[in-house]
Amino acid sequence: MSLWIYPGTFDPITTGHLDVIRRASKLCGSLIVGVLNNTQKTPVFSTEERIGMIGKCTAGIGNITVEGFEGLLVDYVRQKKADAIIRGVRSFSDFEHEFQMASLNRMLAPDIETVFIMAASDYSFVSSTLLREIASFGGDLSKLAPPQIINEIYERLYKEDSI
Amino acid sequence: MSLWIYPGTFDPITTGHLDVIRRASKLCGSLIVGVLNNTQKTPVFSTEERIGMIGKCTAGIGNITVEGFEGLLVDYVRQKKADAIIRGVRSFSDFEHEFQMASLNRMLAPDIETVFIMAASDYSFVSSTLLREIASFGGDLSKLAPPQIINEIYERLYKEDSI
Amino acid sequence: MSLWIYPGTFDPITTGHLDVIRRASKLCGSLIVGVLNNTQKTPVFSTEERIGMIGKCTAGIGNITVEGFEGLLVDYVRQKKADAIIRGVRSFSDFEHEFQMASLNRMLAPDIETVFIMAASDYSFVSSTLLREIASFGGDLSKLAPPQIINEIYERLYKEDSI
Amino acid sequence: MSLWIYPGTFDPITTGHLDVIRRASKLCGSLIVGVLNNTQKTPVFSTEERIGMIGKCTAGIGNITVEGFEGLLVDYVRQKKADAIIRGVRSFSDFEHEFQMASLNRMLAPDIETVFIMAASDYSFVSSTLLREIASFGGDLSKLAPPQIINEIYERLYKEDSI
Amino acid sequence: MSLWIYPGTFDPITTGHLDVIRRASKLCGSLIVGVLNNTQKTPVFSTEERIGMIGKCTAGIGNITVEGFEGLLVDYVRQKKADAIIRGVRSFSDFEHEFQMASLNRMLAPDIETVFIMAASDYSFVSSTLLREIASFGGDLSKLAPPQIINEIYERLYKEDSI
Amino acid sequence: MSLWIYPGTFDPITTGHLDVIRRASKLCGSLIVGVLNNTQKTPVFSTEERIGMIGKCTAGIGNITVEGFEGLLVDYVRQKKADAIIRGVRSFSDFEHEFQMASLNRMLAPDIETVFIMAASDYSFVSSTLLREIASFGGDLSKLAPPQIINEIYERLYKEDSI
Repeated sequence: MSLWIYPGTFDPITTGHLDVIRRASKLCGSLIVGVLNNTQKTPVFSTEERIGMIGKCTAGIGNITVEGFEGLLVDYVRQKKADAIIRGVRSFSDFEHEFQMASLNRMLAPDIETVFIMAASDYSFVSSTLLREIASFGGDLSKLAPPQIINEIYERLYKEDSI
Repeated sequence: MSLWIYPGTFDPITTGHLDVIRRASKLCGSLIVGVLNNTQKTPVFSTEERIGMIGKCTAGIGNITVEGFEGLLVDYVRQKKADAIIRGVRSFSDFEHEFQMASLNRMLAPDIETVFIMAASDYSFVSSTLLREIASFGGDLSKLAPPQIINEIYERLYKEDSI
Repeated sequence: MSLWIYPGTFDPITTGHLDVIRRASKLCGSLIVGVLNNTQKTPVFSTEERIGMIGKCTAGIGNITVEGFEGLLVDYVRQKKADAIIRGVRSFSDFEHEFQMASLNRMLAPDIETVFIMAASDYSFVSSTLLREIASFGGDLSKLAPPQIINEIYERLYKEDSI
Repeated sequence: MSLWIYPGTFDPITTGHLDVIRRASKLCGSLIVGVLNNTQKTPVFSTEERIGMIGKCTAGIGNITVEGFEGLLVDYVRQKKADAIIRGVRSFSDFEHEFQMASLNRMLAPDIETVFIMAASDYSFVSSTLLREIASFGGDLSKLAPPQIINEIYERLYKEDSI
Repeated sequence: MSLWIYPGTFDPITTGHLDVIRRASKLCGSLIVGVLNNTQKTPVFSTEERIGMIGKCTAGIGNITVEGFEGLLVDYVRQKKADAIIRGVRSFSDFEHEFQMASLNRMLAPDIETVFIMAASDYSFVSSTLLREIASFGGDLSKLAPPQIINEIYERLYKEDSI
Repeated sequence: MSLWIYPGTFDPITTGHLDVIRRASKLCGSLIVGVLNNTQKTPVFSTEERIGMIGKCTAGIGNITVEGFEGLLVDYVRQKKADAIIRGVRSFSDFEHEFQMASLNRMLAPDIETVFIMAASDYSFVSSTLLREIASFGGDLSKLAPPQIINEIYERLYKEDSI
């Protein structure tokens, strides 16, 4: 059965990410959610926290593994012997960026395919950056973040801002 | 194993279409190339001819079936009990149209996913329309059409134009 | 109070059009829905039918008038002494076309402003053309067309196709 | 009469912003220009300076108020009991971003509409960022900044750079 | 000195086309305006009329030749031993199409370069199609068509429409 | 003969930049590659290093000069009495940015034209930023960077990262 990898920063996972995970998990044999441990950028949540949050939100989905990775995506995909990279696209501007990255990855590793699926239109404007901004002002997160992690997000971001 | 459907008009099949078929066939259990028999538009090649041309070009790929279909795509996908629709995207403007169609199909049949894969950049400008136009002037088709069908295309289009 | 004009072909009115009408009617004093009687194209529904269908769908909205118009939009807007043209935008590609038309109208009539509002994301893929195509195959119109006119659309388009 | 809010950073106000203010002020009963006091970013001009500059440039327009705001835009709009958010769009890429923000705001506050108007094509490339960059090199600002504030901009930006 | 070809249908030449011709003529040794004699489409003005109209509008520019051509553009460019194809771009959507055509031409003739220049923003919404539509209603053409040919356009299009 | 300037940061030069240089050098009399010495951003390679790397890669092209510049591009172009600015475009999103900059430069200096040429599709995803990222992980640079400078890039970026 096919193995797909869904890579990202997930800082934190949004309802849009979760929608992509649910859809992708039905199309492949098993799915690895790969959380980028980027040593050059400083995410708000640590790699361990981000993995934990995704784990909470995807507890009911059978064929999913969540883990961190470092370095070039194509090296990680090869190491896992995965068949494809899966990416969600929400909109036009997303696609431009995704197209460039998929072209680069195809150049670096012609044997690895990138597969795009469309997030539900309800989530087309959701991003981790917007989610964090709304959270920092104590705004309503019920359509932006999975319910399992909303408290955790408020605790980190709303407190931080008010100090 | 998963069954995917790659629908299109294929009037005629291009090197870009063939690239998508090859890539998609590696990602799924089996692939049906569905040739739209659109009663409202008049293609240059008949449904039978278009099916025949695709068959010639995909003779070496094991898990492929080519057949015609009529009516709504989602009805056809359901009838075949397929898991996903596969579409190739070459560029930005492609994507806009593909996104709209995928949204419509998701509304009509929420259980059917659309999966996008990227055609090789060498084929990013290839379309059946351009191919037919170049053929009508006797231009070089070697990068636009699979070699198995170039003669058939010239015979139809170059002759027609010069009469 | 301000008078706005919402021009279009409305062949026929979709749920997306109706969403724009509802939103716009709250922002202006009164709204004229202007149905283009284009002598060069042949719509499926006559101008009278299209006006009638919009009337049925907007019966509950107080400050709306529906009427036909011919010729240049800016001449019509001036004749009605309207303050602004209202246009709905669903997506990126919509916007490109709308931007060009608004630029042209500003050149022809610098005193008339074009105002854009965003249709609900649920309707982002809905168009009269797609609606007619789905109807011709007897597909589900419940999210594409207002309920008041679904029967009328099926009668015209599904019958026509099956003859 | 309707109350609209035109939010932004205005660091500083450009000829493009002023064009949008003039056009919007004719379409609504009264217009509040809301200057974002973003505690996370450090603008070149203070909130008070930015409010003062907009005040100078809009002195001749009767139905305008200029003030600062903090926190989520939708909270501010609700507190002012405004009917709509107004945004100027200059180009395609503008629109993508504006569309995403308007979708987010509609989710957070479905009763508040976002209205887009088109800046004059003369100002389609003008942004506060470009204006500041040109000013830092002592370039010609006559088409980028309203005349009332050009000296103030040079004093801040050209001096700073040459020290 | 370099020889450039500016190909198009020019049905009829617009102020935007003329702006591109003026700008391109300053960048190359000599410029051929190539008027496509497309046997598959029926332009409103004959090839001879279109050549004549361009000739009238470019009478004051020294290094320009206007002539018709048939068949593939790259064959024509090679026959004239030209160094480059020049194309005007007005906007985003233009560019998408132009990019595709330039890619196709590069594939057919790798030795021929396509050079893009930007039409003035005043002309960004001008097209032959819009010009003909405005003319058919007797609208103001002063910013759409060069003054030398406005009467000729009205005579053909306004008369035709009113019969 | 005409003099063109190709401005950029070139931090470092990519195969895509080099492709544009080669194509542009055939279209003009002579070409200056202008390396921006931006005092506000800190490039990875110094201006001298960047000039040196471009020099190594363009050694075989006769009509090219490489030099640094500071301040506004249009001031530099005027000082060199150049006829045009040349820019490479790889994709849609490139074009948006390039269009805005060309519009700004036309406003600041209406007599200077910007000319766009298309990089080969093989290089459409190549950027200095991506190149540096791949290099920092020791990834394959053979299609991203000219062979003459690959060692120099690895030495700087791969070492830095591993310390």
